[in-house]
Amino acid sequence: MANPVNPPRGMRDFLPADKARREHALGIIKSVYRANGFDEIETPVVEDYARLHAGLGGDNEKLSFSILKRGITPEALAAAAEVGDVEQLADLGLRFDLTVPLTRFYASHRAELPPVFRSLQIAPVWRAERPQKGRYRQFVQADIDVIGEPGILAEIELIAATSQTLAELGLEGCVIRVNDRRILFGLLAHCGFAADTHERALITIDKLDKIGAEGVVAELSEIDAAAADSLGEVLAAVEPAISGDGIPLTGERIAAVLPVGAAEEGATNLSVLGAALEGMLPEGVTVRFDPTLVRGMGYYTGTIFEIAHPGSGSSVGGGGRYDGMVGRFLGQDVPAVGFSIGFERVVDLISLPQSTGAEAVALVFDQDVEYPQLVALKRELVARGHRVRLERRQKNMKTLLARIAAEGFTSIANVRHGTTSVDELELRPLAG
Amino acid sequence: MANPVNPPRGMRDFLPADKARREHALGIIKSVYRANGFDEIETPVVEDYARLHAGLGGDNEKLSFSILKRGITPEALAAAAEVGDVEQLADLGLRFDLTVPLTRFYASHRAELPPVFRSLQIAPVWRAERPQKGRYRQFVQADIDVIGEPGILAEIELIAATSQTLAELGLEGCVIRVNDRRILFGLLAHCGFAADTHERALITIDKLDKIGAEGVVAELSEIDAAAADSLGEVLAAVEPAISGDGIPLTGERIAAVLPVGAAEEGATNLSVLGAALEGMLPEGVTVRFDPTLVRGMGYYTGTIFEIAHPGSGSSVGGGGRYDGMVGRFLGQDVPAVGFSIGFERVVDLISLPQSTGAEAVALVFDQDVEYPQLVALKRELVARGHRVRLERRQKNMKTLLARIAAEGFTSIANVRHGTTSVDELELRPLAG
Repeated sequence: MANPVNPPRGMRDFLPADKARREHALGIIKSVYRANGFDEIETPVVEDYARLHAGLGGDNEKLSFSILKRGITPEALAAAAEVGDVEQLADLGLRFDLTVPLTRFYASHRAELPPVFRSLQIAPVWRAERPQKGRYRQFVQADIDVIGEPGILAEIELIAATSQTLAELGLEGCVIRVNDRRILFGLLAHCGFAADTHERALITIDKLDKIGAEGVVAELSEIDAAAADSLGEVLAAVEPAISGDGIPLTGERIAAVLPVGAAEEGATNLSVLGAALEGMLPEGVTVRFDPTLVRGMGYYTGTIFEIAHPGSGSSVGGGGRYDGMVGRFLGQDVPAVGFSIGFERVVDLISLPQSTGAEAVALVFDQDVEYPQLVALKRELVARGHRVRLERRQKNMKTLLARIAAEGFTSIANVRHGTTSVDELELRPLAG
Repeated sequence: MANPVNPPRGMRDFLPADKARREHALGIIKSVYRANGFDEIETPVVEDYARLHAGLGGDNEKLSFSILKRGITPEALAAAAEVGDVEQLADLGLRFDLTVPLTRFYASHRAELPPVFRSLQIAPVWRAERPQKGRYRQFVQADIDVIGEPGILAEIELIAATSQTLAELGLEGCVIRVNDRRILFGLLAHCGFAADTHERALITIDKLDKIGAEGVVAELSEIDAAAADSLGEVLAAVEPAISGDGIPLTGERIAAVLPVGAAEEGATNLSVLGAALEGMLPEGVTVRFDPTLVRGMGYYTGTIFEIAHPGSGSSVGGGGRYDGMVGRFLGQDVPAVGFSIGFERVVDLISLPQSTGAEAVALVFDQDVEYPQLVALKRELVARGHRVRLERRQKNMKTLLARIAAEGFTSIANVRHGTTSVDELELRPLAG
C-alpha cells in the first residue's frame, strides 16, 4: 500500500500555487457573471445512471464513470454475469457535463425559479477519455445558461457577459465564432440534401478543420454527389472571408456570403444579435459569423457559438441554443441556451497579477521564543491585514529565504526571545 | 425518463439563495485560514479503490461509493461472479474524507512542499449513509492540517485559526473541547486496564454521551470489572466540572481532575496549549479540557479536539494529531495534526448579512424596447458596480416586484422605448 501515491490516471492534484491561480480565475468569472445577473447554483456530482444514459450526452455518455450499487449480493452479481450486463450493477454515475444536471435541476425546481432563469454553474465534470496533454479525466466547466427566454435576448446576454469575463481574465485576442443551426440546415437544403440526411451531413461538416473542404465534399458525396458538389462551391465562396479577418455579424455581411434565399430566418437572428453587440464588446474580443461552425452536440436547435483564442489549438468555450432538451425532462418545452467556458484552458492561458494585495509576512522565530508571544505577534499581524506564516529559524537561512520568496511571501521579520510587540518587528522586503 | 427529477438519494441541489449562503461562508473560511498561513490545495474527488480500503478510514470505508472499471468484459464479470466478489470490478472510489487524499497528496508532492506544510482543503466527500435530517451523502468538509511539525505549536495554530474562523462566521458560543489520547491511555492504565484492552475501552468511553457513566462502567466490566469500577470513580469525579462551566486549559485545573501520577505527558502538552491560547481566543469561543473526549478514529495519537455549539446536537468540527498515518503512505514517519469544520452544520447555523454590498438592480423593460439600447444600459450599470438583471414587464407587476425583492434585488428601474442613458433611469428602492 506504499505505492503508487499519484492521483488516479488522468486526474490532477493542485499544489498551492496552482490552486491560487485557479481560485483567482474563479473569483473573476463568478463576480462578472454575478454582476450580469446570473445566479449560481450547485448540483450533486453524481446523477442517476439512467439519466446519464438517456441519449442527451452524445459520445460523452460512453465516457461516463459509473458507480456500483451498494450492497450488491452474490446473487445479483451472478444474475448480471448471466446476461453479461455489468451496467445493471450501477445506479449512479459521475456527470460528464453540466447541462444534463442543469436540465434535471430545472425540471425539479422550476416552481422556485424565476420565469427566465439565468443560471451559473462552475464545477468539475468527469470523462474517462484517454489522458493526453491538456485533456483530463476530471476538469472544471464554467457554464451560464438562460432558461425560459425564447428570443435572441438570451444569446445577447450570454455573449455580452462571457465577453466581459474573458476580458477581465486578461484573455486578449478572443474570437467568438457564431452560427445558427437553421443556417446550416438552410444551406444543406439549398444544396439539395434531403432533410433526413442533414444530421449526418453536419457530422461531416464538423470535420472541416481536420479533413478540409475536399475531404468534406468527398465524404458528403456518399450521401448525394450533386448536393456535395454544390456545398463545395458554397464552402469555397465563404472560405476566404472566414480565414481572413472573418465576417462581421451584420445583416449585410452575413447575407453576402449566403446563397440568395437560403437560411433567412437564421440570418435575421444573427443580424439582430450582431446589432445588439455592436459597440458592446470589450477590447480584445470580436464576434464573427462562421457559416461552417457546427458544434458537436445533436441537441442544438438555433444559435451556436465557440470561442477561439490564438494561444489554444482547440476552442476555449462554446455553446448554443437547445430548445428541445429541457422538455425531455419536464414533459413541456422550455427554451434554453447556454455558454460554457473551458476553465482548464482558460487557466492555462492567463497570468496571475504579481501582487495578491495584502502583504505576506514570514515570521522567522528562534528556538527559544515562547509560543504565547509568537502566537500573539502572528494574531496581531493577521488583524492588520497580513497573511502570516511561521517559519522556524534554520541554519541555512539562504535556502529558507529563497523558498518562501518562491512561495509568494513578500516580507520577513525575525522574532527573538523577548519580542513582544509588532512595533518591535522589523519587516524586511523579500526579493521576489 | 421524465421522472424522477430529484437529485440522487441523500444528495442536494442548491438553489441560488442556498448557494449564496454557502459561498459567503466559504469566502470567510478561506480568507481567515489563508491569512493564518494555510495554503489551499485540491485533490481529485476519486482515489484508488485500494487506498480507500487500506484501513485508514475506520467505518467510513464501508460507506464508500465505488466506481466500476471501464470496459469490463463479460469474462471479467463472470470471473467476479464466480468468486462472488463484486469489489474486483471497481478500481476507484469517491473519497469519504479529506485526510486519506491529503496523506496521499503529501506523499506524492513532499519534495515540492515546505518542511512544515499548512494545508487547507475545502471540498465535498461522499458517504453512503442512511439519509436523515442534517446528514447527507455528499457534504463539504473544511480541513486544515499541519504536516511536519511535531510540537504543540501545530495545535496552537490550528485552534487559533479555527477559533478566528468561527468568530468571523458569527458563530457565538462555540466551545472547543480538548483532550489528549495519552491522557486517556494514562487513565486506563491508572485504573488497571491492560494495555491491549485500551483501544477497545476507548470505543466504549466514546459512547458516554449516549449510554452515560453507568452504561460505560457496565460495558467495561466485561473487560475488567475492578478497572471499570475504578474508571467509574474517575468519571464521577470529573463529571461535575465538565458539565458545569467546564475545565479551563490550565496546568492547575487539568491536574486537579486527573488522578495523581496519571497521564503527565498529555497533561503537560495541554497546559502548554492552554497557555499559548490564553487571551488569544476571540469573543464567543472558549477552550475546555474534557478528559472523557475520545473522537472515533483509531489513528489519533495525541491531542484531540471537538467543537460544540449550543445550536447543534452533534459536533460542529473536530480533529487531532495522527502522527503515524502519513508514514503508512510514505514509508517514513511524519508528524501531522488536523482540524476539520463540518461545513454543512456551520452553514445551517450562520445568518447572512442583510446587504451583499453592491446594489442589485432589476431593469424592467417594455416590449418595444430595442435590444442594443437595453444591453447598453445594463452594461453601464454593471460597470458602475451594480448587479443587474433584466426583467420583461408583465401585467401583474405586483407579483414581479414581490418575487425580485425576495430574490435579493434592492432596486428597480423602468426602461422605456427611447431611454438611452443611465442618467435617465429612475432607480427606486424595493421593499425587502
